[in-house]
Amino acid sequence: MAKEKTLEDLFHETLKDIYFAEKKILTALPKMAKAAHSEELKAAFEKHHAETEGQVERLEEVFELLEKPARGKTCQAILGLVEEGQEVMKEFKKSDAHDAGLLSGAQAVEHYEISRYGTLIAWAKQLGMNDAAKLLKQNLDEEKNADMALSKLALSSLNQLAA
Amino acid sequence: MAKEKTLEDLFHETLKDIYFAEKKILTALPKMAKAAHSEELKAAFEKHHAETEGQVERLEEVFELLEKPARGKTCQAILGLVEEGQEVMKEFKKSDAHDAGLLSGAQAVEHYEISRYGTLIAWAKQLGMNDAAKLLKQNLDEEKNADMALSKLALSSLNQLAA
Repeated sequence: MAKEKTLEDLFHETLKDIYFAEKKILTALPKMAKAAHSEELKAAFEKHHAETEGQVERLEEVFELLEKPARGKTCQAILGLVEEGQEVMKEFKKSDAHDAGLLSGAQAVEHYEISRYGTLIAWAKQLGMNDAAKLLKQNLDEEKNADMALSKLALSSLNQLAA
Repeated sequence: MAKEKTLEDLFHETLKDIYFAEKKILTALPKMAKAAHSEELKAAFEKHHAETEGQVERLEEVFELLEKPARGKTCQAILGLVEEGQEVMKEFKKSDAHDAGLLSGAQAVEHYEISRYGTLIAWAKQLGMNDAAKLLKQNLDEEKNADMALSKLALSSLNQLAA
């Protein structure tokens, strides 16, 4: 009989999910930077791309702590989020509202990650994996900061639209 | 030549997206309530189902204010999120960690909605649609409360696992 699944299995599955998601984001961010109309938004996406590389490395450290190979598992949620962002970039390409749409999509991605990291940290602590929890907390903090930076840019992009 | 797309178009597109998402959630919540192991979690999903019905009605009022028919547009993100939740329900059906996984998926959905409503409110204000902003704010507040309630349940479900 198959062994009953545990919280550690759930942690591992969700780690594979966010690992896939971060790698997908790594490929999406340069396209978003290229598409952004405003130089500030371009720069924000480029900065977050560099951060995301570090986040992927931290996730690889968590896999090591778990003594499992660093391997992703298709995350349908991130594929959907990225696809929605691509639609907006295409449909609003020449619109003054383009960057507002792009920002909105990027913030939806940040919220997904914030939710996943929050969960993973709680589970890591429960499993006594405090080093893993610390690494995940660093990723969470970066995502929260990225989300705040995007919120500020979203406000200033709306103000420019009004001007 | 096609008219250039505006912020109002972006608002309308994103309204269709969240309308589709809320309706999808209406069909997912009863399945989640049925699958939940704990009575508390079942009750939380049932309560949120009733709230979601009200949220759908408010979105229909926003469509009216926009003088557009209430019509959804496939939201790939919510389809992905719901699919991930279904996978966890299936794979962890008999596991003690089942509810922790189910809660995590539900919180990812809440975060998606919180992000979308935040964006829609900012855009509604920018467009001078203050009545729409108020309706959307009511939905946002309910989602934030639902997320907090789920966070509490998540903690207590982890404590039970530890016991």
